[in-house]
Amino acid sequence: MSASSPQQIALIGLGTIGMSMAALHLSREHNIVDVFDIRPDFEDYLSKTLPIYMSQGPSSIDSKSSSGSQPTSLVESLVSSGRLRIHSSLETACASATIVQEQGPENPDWKQSLWAQVEAIAPPSAHLWTSTSGIAASIQQLQMRDKTRLLVVHPFNPPNIMPLLEIVPAPETLPARVEFAHGYFSVPGSKHRPVTVRKEIPGFVGNRLAFALLREACHLVQEDVVSAKDLDTILMASLGPRWAGNGVFESYQQGGGEGGIRAFLEKLGGTMQTVWEGQGRVNVLGDEGTEWKEKVITQVDQAYGTLSADQIREKEARLKDFVRVQTQRYPTGGAEI
Amino acid sequence: MSASSPQQIALIGLGTIGMSMAALHLSREHNIVDVFDIRPDFEDYLSKTLPIYMSQGPSSIDSKSSSGSQPTSLVESLVSSGRLRIHSSLETACASATIVQEQGPENPDWKQSLWAQVEAIAPPSAHLWTSTSGIAASIQQLQMRDKTRLLVVHPFNPPNIMPLLEIVPAPETLPARVEFAHGYFSVPGSKHRPVTVRKEIPGFVGNRLAFALLREACHLVQEDVVSAKDLDTILMASLGPRWAGNGVFESYQQGGGEGGIRAFLEKLGGTMQTVWEGQGRVNVLGDEGTEWKEKVITQVDQAYGTLSADQIREKEARLKDFVRVQTQRYPTGGAEI
Repeated sequence: MSASSPQQIALIGLGTIGMSMAALHLSREHNIVDVFDIRPDFEDYLSKTLPIYMSQGPSSIDSKSSSGSQPTSLVESLVSSGRLRIHSSLETACASATIVQEQGPENPDWKQSLWAQVEAIAPPSAHLWTSTSGIAASIQQLQMRDKTRLLVVHPFNPPNIMPLLEIVPAPETLPARVEFAHGYFSVPGSKHRPVTVRKEIPGFVGNRLAFALLREACHLVQEDVVSAKDLDTILMASLGPRWAGNGVFESYQQGGGEGGIRAFLEKLGGTMQTVWEGQGRVNVLGDEGTEWKEKVITQVDQAYGTLSADQIREKEARLKDFVRVQTQRYPTGGAEI
Repeated sequence: MSASSPQQIALIGLGTIGMSMAALHLSREHNIVDVFDIRPDFEDYLSKTLPIYMSQGPSSIDSKSSSGSQPTSLVESLVSSGRLRIHSSLETACASATIVQEQGPENPDWKQSLWAQVEAIAPPSAHLWTSTSGIAASIQQLQMRDKTRLLVVHPFNPPNIMPLLEIVPAPETLPARVEFAHGYFSVPGSKHRPVTVRKEIPGFVGNRLAFALLREACHLVQEDVVSAKDLDTILMASLGPRWAGNGVFESYQQGGGEGGIRAFLEKLGGTMQTVWEGQGRVNVLGDEGTEWKEKVITQVDQAYGTLSADQIREKEARLKDFVRVQTQRYPTGGAEI
């Protein structure tokens, strides 16, 4: 079955990421989504929560089905049409899946045990995806007999809005499994942009880049160069919109004029080397280099407080706006498999 | 004179940044801009180039004055209305300035000599701004008698579109000079967001954050984790739009849920520390750790080639779109002085 055909997706674990993933899969008209979660009030929670995610997505279906003002009826309508099936056992959820995707606890033992069970009950052809942000597929599959099927599909939160999916196979994962996942998320009309990461590396790529910037950000706040809030303003007023439109390498290719990034590196090399040599080496664990933590946490709490549900919705609306502008300006696809 | 009153700005050096700065200042209806540059064809170059920048700005004036389809007439019209004055000497350019702003070569000797001259010819009340990205005000003012007037106003390219201005005073710069610069760029209706950086530090804040991310990006390409183009896609499909809408600290405050950034640091601390300890330590100068350069340059050239004028215009249109969305969603101002 090709990646652009309708799929039957068994979703295991429906917290924040799982719920958003359900909305993503259900936004494709002919997909069937089987959901399984161990929380006792799961059906009630799903009825209340799923409609919120489905009304947010880049290709929301709420105009086509029940009104968003009657949230429970959307889930009822999806269930009665056979597109959403709520399960009370892993067995029935996976029984006829073409894709099994987990968003469970970030715990290697839990994931290893899950995949051994899934292997025993799901069809052998089913694609096996983990949404983990940190546990490599090669670790998760240690108890599996067939080590060619599992791969990481790491979304950025919330996956129904955020375009990126990092696809990270284990060394033993079959290339056809990678191609299928890539194809599924980049069908024509999809707002998503899957990118394959070639090596299993902690943090994959997106979080490594984010954490590199964050480390310097924490250092600058600790050194009183700038407040946490002003640092956020600096980022939003410069690098954020720049990198929403052009990647870091493309930006510096442009920054170098006719000589491209080579000329840029020659021109800015002195400052860059000085900055690299003076980078902060703060730590987040241990006893050394962690003085920044209380200062940063205090400043961030003072600047933003606890975010209300309304504020979070406003932030997601912003994100959606940026993604919409980006999608209009960019053809989808184009990333290498 | 208050920062929101019309100003008379002497601009010294009109390359890319200077021309964009001229467009920014001229977008305020009552400002008068005096321009001085040593290139022999300056007047001709200005006539051809300034209209391009003025039609790009967030508050373009081209609808109010001459048509963009007859570019030379815009400069003629600005000159005949007295809002733009072209000078052939530094003396006449600075003679009655309320602000003198330089975008000359990034050379400490050149800048020290310039400011010593400017001090002798400009009114003592004039504010002195340097657009440098790397030479601190405390270095530039070494030959000045009065060391309380000069400060860095570091724009991001192109300043007529990009909201950020990093204001970096020297230790001896008077606070009133900092407040004036801050006030000038944050008048009501301005799309710009000035932020004061409290210490003179190489790369200031924006470039330090960018270079921290770039260093890890170069390391990941060197290690074949991802191609340069795919890394750009990852950044554009996740962190770019996220940081266009919310800063890095605000994002993690949200990411931690009710527990805020403290909970986020606890939850992700293990991965973060592992990533920080494994960060690439590539160099841009010297003989060690520079193997990445040819690989990155080759991949970037293959991915993007030399950018045409049309491609650059398209990129700036994208940037302008993101800034527009951001400005609609955000009240301006709010940064601490």
